[in-house]
Amino acid sequence: MHESINFSEKFAKINQHWTPGIVAEMNDYQFKLVKVQGDFVWHSHEDTDEVFIVLEGEMDIEFRDGKVTIKSGEMYVVPKGVEHKPFAENECKIMIVEPGGVTNTGDAGGELTAEDGVWI
Amino acid sequence: MHESINFSEKFAKINQHWTPGIVAEMNDYQFKLVKVQGDFVWHSHEDTDEVFIVLEGEMDIEFRDGKVTIKSGEMYVVPKGVEHKPFAENECKIMIVEPGGVTNTGDAGGELTAEDGVWI
Repeated sequence: MHESINFSEKFAKINQHWTPGIVAEMNDYQFKLVKVQGDFVWHSHEDTDEVFIVLEGEMDIEFRDGKVTIKSGEMYVVPKGVEHKPFAENECKIMIVEPGGVTNTGDAGGELTAEDGVWI
Repeated sequence: MHESINFSEKFAKINQHWTPGIVAEMNDYQFKLVKVQGDFVWHSHEDTDEVFIVLEGEMDIEFRDGKVTIKSGEMYVVPKGVEHKPFAENECKIMIVEPGGVTNTGDAGGELTAEDGVWI
């Protein structure tokens, strides 16, 4: 009846980069797993902070005034309204935490925009 | 200027079980690291769900109608208002996500109640 959510099992269901899969909900917030590799687009989220937790590998987030490298066992909170561009040289497995209904490309749109609300 | 939050470095600052240390804030939610071992108290949080993510080791959460085991690389969301009792046979390192201002022992109180709002 009570079952834990296993990240490895969930990641096995993801076969595209930059496509978040929701694995859990807490109040009106969602926990999403994402495989990232290569360049994402510059974007921002006007209404919410966004949490990145790296579970495997490492990624960078570029800002207009610098960048942060986030490795496995680390996290970072992108403040609301701050332009950022995620990047990963090699495939990296991450968890994103943010309110339900947030679009991955924020204000930017474009071809990397993923469908909202997909549970895995 | 932009710095990631490293869980190992933060855990090195924690020297008591069941005492959460805040490491990040997202909107009005907080991310807390906790070292747990032994029995916690039965309690519930009337106003919020509570997320447990196990980073190292394993723990159980007992419910009145069963229990869940959560291992490293797994998570579980305790729904608001549901009585639960965390337990870990061996020391286990976890992350808790919940709104700021939530007390660890919820409605139960007692000697394991930790000070709110402690950043590490």
